[in-house]
Amino acid sequence: MFIVIGERINTTLEQVKKAVDKRDAAYITNDVKNQTECGATYIDVNAGAGISHEEEDLKWLIEVVQKATHLPLCIDSPDPKILETAYEMTDKPPIINSISLEKNRFNAMIPFLKGKDCKIIALCMDDSGMPKNSQDIIRCAKTMVKELEDIGIKRDNIFIDPLIQPMSVDGNNGTMVLEAVSVIMKELKGVHTTGGLSNISYGLPKRKIINRSFLLMLMANGFNSAIMDPTDKDLMAALKTGEMIMGNDNFCMNFLKSVRAGEITA
Amino acid sequence: MFIVIGERINTTLEQVKKAVDKRDAAYITNDVKNQTECGATYIDVNAGAGISHEEEDLKWLIEVVQKATHLPLCIDSPDPKILETAYEMTDKPPIINSISLEKNRFNAMIPFLKGKDCKIIALCMDDSGMPKNSQDIIRCAKTMVKELEDIGIKRDNIFIDPLIQPMSVDGNNGTMVLEAVSVIMKELKGVHTTGGLSNISYGLPKRKIINRSFLLMLMANGFNSAIMDPTDKDLMAALKTGEMIMGNDNFCMNFLKSVRAGEITA
Repeated sequence: MFIVIGERINTTLEQVKKAVDKRDAAYITNDVKNQTECGATYIDVNAGAGISHEEEDLKWLIEVVQKATHLPLCIDSPDPKILETAYEMTDKPPIINSISLEKNRFNAMIPFLKGKDCKIIALCMDDSGMPKNSQDIIRCAKTMVKELEDIGIKRDNIFIDPLIQPMSVDGNNGTMVLEAVSVIMKELKGVHTTGGLSNISYGLPKRKIINRSFLLMLMANGFNSAIMDPTDKDLMAALKTGEMIMGNDNFCMNFLKSVRAGEITA
Repeated sequence: MFIVIGERINTTLEQVKKAVDKRDAAYITNDVKNQTECGATYIDVNAGAGISHEEEDLKWLIEVVQKATHLPLCIDSPDPKILETAYEMTDKPPIINSISLEKNRFNAMIPFLKGKDCKIIALCMDDSGMPKNSQDIIRCAKTMVKELEDIGIKRDNIFIDPLIQPMSVDGNNGTMVLEAVSVIMKELKGVHTTGGLSNISYGLPKRKIINRSFLLMLMANGFNSAIMDPTDKDLMAALKTGEMIMGNDNFCMNFLKSVRAGEITA
């Protein structure tokens, strides 16, 4: 089953930032309920925009979000210390977002992750920066899977993020990730692949058609999770159609159910 | 560049059959002009529904279609004799649709194809019938490419058709073709892959979303031609988006042009 990590509780989004600044629990609750009803599997929670008060903001958000939904969280911060605090507050095993091969981050995360009951997003980057080709992504993925397995994390709990970069920046940014995902899913059998889907369309118009098209292309190569907007109806319709085509929908029953529910309109 | 083989002139479609029976050239002309304007690369012409009078019907169609468009044809018949007659009538190098490894068809087609200036669609089937898994498809593809190269046909002129079969019949029918296309495009570098796209959705509702989703998934694996309906606007929008993501659209210029022309709406 494809794992949908609902991306909407993120303070880089203006409305969410306002709600967090005002401690507007109703706004957050409403959005989280909406993501839950629309089919999210996890709710990502990111308070990274308020650098000096990220930890306070995130703690407040986690409380509000956990009251609003039965879904587990994906706690999202570049700061290992904040992730530790956030992890202690979760009432169900979360996804931890994220580790990378950047030395400081990696060295701080590994002792914390050892023996934890959680899933982890592993960003395919190191101190040399974002990946420049599919080989960079694959090399980072292999190194991280080895390191994480060494401390007892099972492959099923590892979510490799190949770092989706915008087509507007480089015409190879699509195929780079598609190729890497295809190799990772074949050579690191059992891991998940995930990533911030809408990065692909940054800087271009009609972002939604680009996002859902890329989702389908990724799924064809084995991609089985995304950090995405579950309230985008056309995106979710594409996802259900893709799952059916990938053979993850016995007798097309989920697809047909979605058609009857009016969720797949054309 | 992705090659769009416009599928609409086919007497298995009720309206087309009526038009052919009545020798209604206006109907055919109008449809072909429409497919041309919508971005077809070739116009498929199939008169196979009228078994006893297929040859006459096809000859009439070819004349009408060639007057209606500057595009080359894809002449479509299971009968090698009829393909020969049709080939002689074409005013530009056509695609011949098709050869297969069925003994009678294969043995009749090979002498005819030798030395011809044309492209050929090679169906991945033999006398044991439709392929049952990706290995069947790949084996047929490899055999046909070898045989066609032996008589001097270049890979760039070979269009491998993996034979898309309905999801409603078997949940593996999607992944079987996706896997085969991926291997064929890697191991038989230089060939094209094509096929009747809408077969995937036969027997299901909301066929258009299934067709365009599968097109994107196929493109992610290297599929670079389809027998499809170029007048389906959402399908063509998906195709343009997919081409951009695959890096076949310098600086996203075609995508942006299509957005400005109102061809990509959401």
